[in-house]
Amino acid sequence: MPRYYEDLEIGETYETGGYTVTKEEIIEFAEQFDPQPFHLDEEAARDSMFGELVASGLHTLCLSVRLFVTEIVNGEVDIANMGGLGMDDLRWHEPVRPGETLRVRVEVVGKTPSTSRSDRGYVDFRRSVVNDADEEVMSILSHNIVRRTDAAD
Amino acid sequence: MPRYYEDLEIGETYETGGYTVTKEEIIEFAEQFDPQPFHLDEEAARDSMFGELVASGLHTLCLSVRLFVTEIVNGEVDIANMGGLGMDDLRWHEPVRPGETLRVRVEVVGKTPSTSRSDRGYVDFRRSVVNDADEEVMSILSHNIVRRTDAAD
Repeated sequence: MPRYYEDLEIGETYETGGYTVTKEEIIEFAEQFDPQPFHLDEEAARDSMFGELVASGLHTLCLSVRLFVTEIVNGEVDIANMGGLGMDDLRWHEPVRPGETLRVRVEVVGKTPSTSRSDRGYVDFRRSVVNDADEEVMSILSHNIVRRTDAAD
Repeated sequence: MPRYYEDLEIGETYETGGYTVTKEEIIEFAEQFDPQPFHLDEEAARDSMFGELVASGLHTLCLSVRLFVTEIVNGEVDIANMGGLGMDDLRWHEPVRPGETLRVRVEVVGKTPSTSRSDRGYVDFRRSVVNDADEEVMSILSHNIVRRTDAAD
């Protein structure tokens, strides 16, 4: 049974397992979506403000969504997610380097019933991405559309 | 010559060319980063709030960054971008379907010199993604770190 809008409580927290990002993946992602020198080439990255090759922040965001969707939404929490409205407060606090293992901590921080649609409500999730040293490398607030129980009858 | 922090003016606008997203790409991206039924499978998508297969909003964001980086930052505008601080106000206004062509409109909306580092400043870009029908499908405010002229001397 999935968990519907009514089943989620403000203050609930979840944590995913780890995902280790490789240098090959960092470069492949950057070639596709964010081809800047410090994400593509170790030599060029030395002259950047990072001083070494680092993952695109967009890549970190994508990996955090993958962990959230596979392990939380489709996983043990099993949330009746209908889609996304948007995101706020995305911040990259620390660079992510090849070989680092990322985990995601999630907290339900807000709930608003839809006034126009009785089958859904809006749930705000604060998501924090941490590395092996338990440093926060990224944080974001996501706004999701979640189905209500009665809509499933 | 790249354009440095001082060279960018609030109110400047740029527009990219178009990128047409295919069904295969939509599914491939979703398998990797956002494996939810309405981004993966046409049959399952019919029962979703979208009624048909649609691109992950994260995919739309990634494609908009690709267009911004390849055509604006690395392209004709040539911005001395050092990296990203974060993003705000990400909203998905309309679903993106297979075969749609996306373009990105960009406006410089804010500039703040760094108080701690004389080699850089922060530039806010409002980015709007539009489809073939010129409907806005996504909007976002990105905060970038841009090198100052004197730092390049």
